Amino acid sequence: MRIWDDVIPESDRLVYEKSGHGKRMGLGKKPALLIIDVNYNWTGQRGLPVLRSIERYPFACGPSAWKAVDLLANFLPLVRQKAARAIYTTGDVRAIGLSGGSKLGRGKEMASIEGGMDIVAEIAPQEGDIVIAKPKASAFFGTPLASMLNALGVDTLLCCGTSTSGCVRASVIDASSYNFRVAVIEECTFDRAQVPHKVNLFDMNAKYADVISLSEARTYLESL
Amino acid sequence: MRIWDDVIPESDRLVYEKSGHGKRMGLGKKPALLIIDVNYNWTGQRGLPVLRSIERYPFACGPSAWKAVDLLANFLPLVRQKAARAIYTTGDVRAIGLSGGSKLGRGKEMASIEGGMDIVAEIAPQEGDIVIAKPKASAFFGTPLASMLNALGVDTLLCCGTSTSGCVRASVIDASSYNFRVAVIEECTFDRAQVPHKVNLFDMNAKYADVISLSEARTYLESL
Amino acid sequence: MRIWDDVIPESDRLVYEKSGHGKRMGLGKKPALLIIDVNYNWTGQRGLPVLRSIERYPFACGPSAWKAVDLLANFLPLVRQKAARAIYTTGDVRAIGLSGGSKLGRGKEMASIEGGMDIVAEIAPQEGDIVIAKPKASAFFGTPLASMLNALGVDTLLCCGTSTSGCVRASVIDASSYNFRVAVIEECTFDRAQVPHKVNLFDMNAKYADVISLSEARTYLESL
Amino acid sequence: MRIWDDVIPESDRLVYEKSGHGKRMGLGKKPALLIIDVNYNWTGQRGLPVLRSIERYPFACGPSAWKAVDLLANFLPLVRQKAARAIYTTGDVRAIGLSGGSKLGRGKEMASIEGGMDIVAEIAPQEGDIVIAKPKASAFFGTPLASMLNALGVDTLLCCGTSTSGCVRASVIDASSYNFRVAVIEECTFDRAQVPHKVNLFDMNAKYADVISLSEARTYLESL
Repeated sequence: MRIWDDVIPESDRLVYEKSGHGKRMGLGKKPALLIIDVNYNWTGQRGLPVLRSIERYPFACGPSAWKAVDLLANFLPLVRQKAARAIYTTGDVRAIGLSGGSKLGRGKEMASIEGGMDIVAEIAPQEGDIVIAKPKASAFFGTPLASMLNALGVDTLLCCGTSTSGCVRASVIDASSYNFRVAVIEECTFDRAQVPHKVNLFDMNAKYADVISLSEARTYLESL
Repeated sequence: MRIWDDVIPESDRLVYEKSGHGKRMGLGKKPALLIIDVNYNWTGQRGLPVLRSIERYPFACGPSAWKAVDLLANFLPLVRQKAARAIYTTGDVRAIGLSGGSKLGRGKEMASIEGGMDIVAEIAPQEGDIVIAKPKASAFFGTPLASMLNALGVDTLLCCGTSTSGCVRASVIDASSYNFRVAVIEECTFDRAQVPHKVNLFDMNAKYADVISLSEARTYLESL
Repeated sequence: MRIWDDVIPESDRLVYEKSGHGKRMGLGKKPALLIIDVNYNWTGQRGLPVLRSIERYPFACGPSAWKAVDLLANFLPLVRQKAARAIYTTGDVRAIGLSGGSKLGRGKEMASIEGGMDIVAEIAPQEGDIVIAKPKASAFFGTPLASMLNALGVDTLLCCGTSTSGCVRASVIDASSYNFRVAVIEECTFDRAQVPHKVNLFDMNAKYADVISLSEARTYLESL
Repeated sequence: MRIWDDVIPESDRLVYEKSGHGKRMGLGKKPALLIIDVNYNWTGQRGLPVLRSIERYPFACGPSAWKAVDLLANFLPLVRQKAARAIYTTGDVRAIGLSGGSKLGRGKEMASIEGGMDIVAEIAPQEGDIVIAKPKASAFFGTPLASMLNALGVDTLLCCGTSTSGCVRASVIDASSYNFRVAVIEECTFDRAQVPHKVNLFDMNAKYADVISLSEARTYLESL
């Protein structure tokens, strides 16, 4: 049973199975955890339903965000204990404001939200963590992430955060294009809408990454 | 009425509407047509249902491919008449074979299919067109496409080809990250599975591109 | 007479001339001014000879820096009057500190110099200017500069700053690789050493850029 | 004694020494050999002086090329014996022809030289070697090289080929920006002009790479 079973019809799954998509790629020996855009602009305020949350934070994902945040807060001590780097991304407000050609063109609006790009307090970066301000959807585009991973000798990226159908998807494609081994931790990844969330997990699992459970991620880290 | 209406539920659409996703971005003055991976590996053999087609071409998309190919063949004369560049991509077999870390890891299998990376005859590149052999999903990753578009003064990419949920999606994200204006021509874009096709069109329209009809693309080109 | 005449011997110049290197490429219609790393770390303190300046700012260029700074301060009003963007770069201390593999590996030392990455006061960025914190030598590497130039419709980069043999050279190569038209303004470009300064100007003029005088840059801007 | 001692004056060397440039960075555990553009366009015909060679191959480097070719031919067996990958680059004629904005703008001329982009026979690529057709000066720009090195687990690039002041310099800057450990093998690296050759070796050694002798490269490989 996978989370996308109720939205991907049997006919589509048959094609993917026969074409060989979705097989496990497996993980490597030196992972880092990539926590994508878990800031107040994308979570919104804890406790509010998504449509209420959007009033103050237009890109808020609502309750699914906070469920993931709590799981992440609980997972991070193991990551740090295993000396896997926690790499956070958030929006580079200055660069976003200059992106005239983008679809949304709302950098200025986003930039005006006080503290909106701050990583949420429950998982605030600690000494030794890395924070990257990114200008676009992918954590790699216009950032030194690829160079940093090279310097650290990382061969595997465990990805989580938000949104599944936006910045997570874009970052996972690039991570795969750079030939890293990539996993997406399902319960720590969230979106503002449910069908895009599920279908993007399906797509990423089919083509670029192993979509794994938080428990599988724990077992993997503990095995290192 | 949009093609994704039957898969994106009302609750998800409400969130996107309220958050302001999916507004038209509009196109620019100097377009190029980006035709992604319309080769035999991705179309398969004309006339076969997708599950049959996969037997010889594991990545074949089946009848939806050939419907798009015929529309494209019919559309290309207007593109060339308007001096918009037709830029084709296909797979760079040599580079794909070295991609040890990728999810599918099937470069060698793909490379062994005689003529599989050839653009289909119905829309064979003509003099003045550009063909780019790409190593990864995005037409920009590890290719000189961004530089070429700069040399040509292109500000707008009309995207089509396959697969919607794979190389088209990846290319559209990068095109948007480079701040080009981006459209996806719905009828000329295809996939091997229907729900991923629709949801990826929805995602791209929400975040990175205007998903337009072939008739809108014609009107736009004629207006130049 | 060119600045490199006393270091490039006749025999070398004959080869370049016969092979066709160094012909003017010409400039385009929509320029921006790229001011590379004119911060205190690279200028050092005004008035000190370079060997003294290095004691506090190890990467200081000394008096040649301040001569260029004064010319730039005088040139900037024309740039802004002509609505050409002034784009400044400086070092991204956070990213530089993580560059384990680099030759110098001195990010932490640089980061510890209070105010070292501040653009010098004489040419402090004004509203409407762009400042990019870059992790590596090239202004393009790991930054959104290419995307910004695309959004702005820029086709020409007038480059200046420091060091000629380091970040200017690296940025000019990338600008040329992205197919921008590139000029280097000779009097506004500086280095800590004289032979590398001259030979890098010669190289760039031969292969990637037109090395022009400040007076030519003025005439060009005034013609727009 | 270094090859650049007769062109870099004492005053310049003092500054570099005091600022800490040029210290050894050291090499890693998993090297690859990057052989840049050792094709007939850049070597010209064996036995001819450079000014004669240019008549047929405008970018020829002359006798210095053939001296390096013979040393490389002798060195390659050790590289392959140690299972270090030999990665060759040559020009991507199709892409070069489209580079409207470049300084030289001579892609078509280069493309018209029959066999000009072929790697010279003395060091012809063998099975297991990699050949990359590159569109611009740097071996990384618009190519999948960074992804390939990642897939291969390479941490160190031994660079050689031509020209020192062009494609070698550009590739070395990018290799350093991606945080690889980089060496330039002095005797296997060549240029069409002597002062640019020496000064670019000086620059690379100061900032991005260890410029080492062929004998040091042998000792390093043998130690693996």
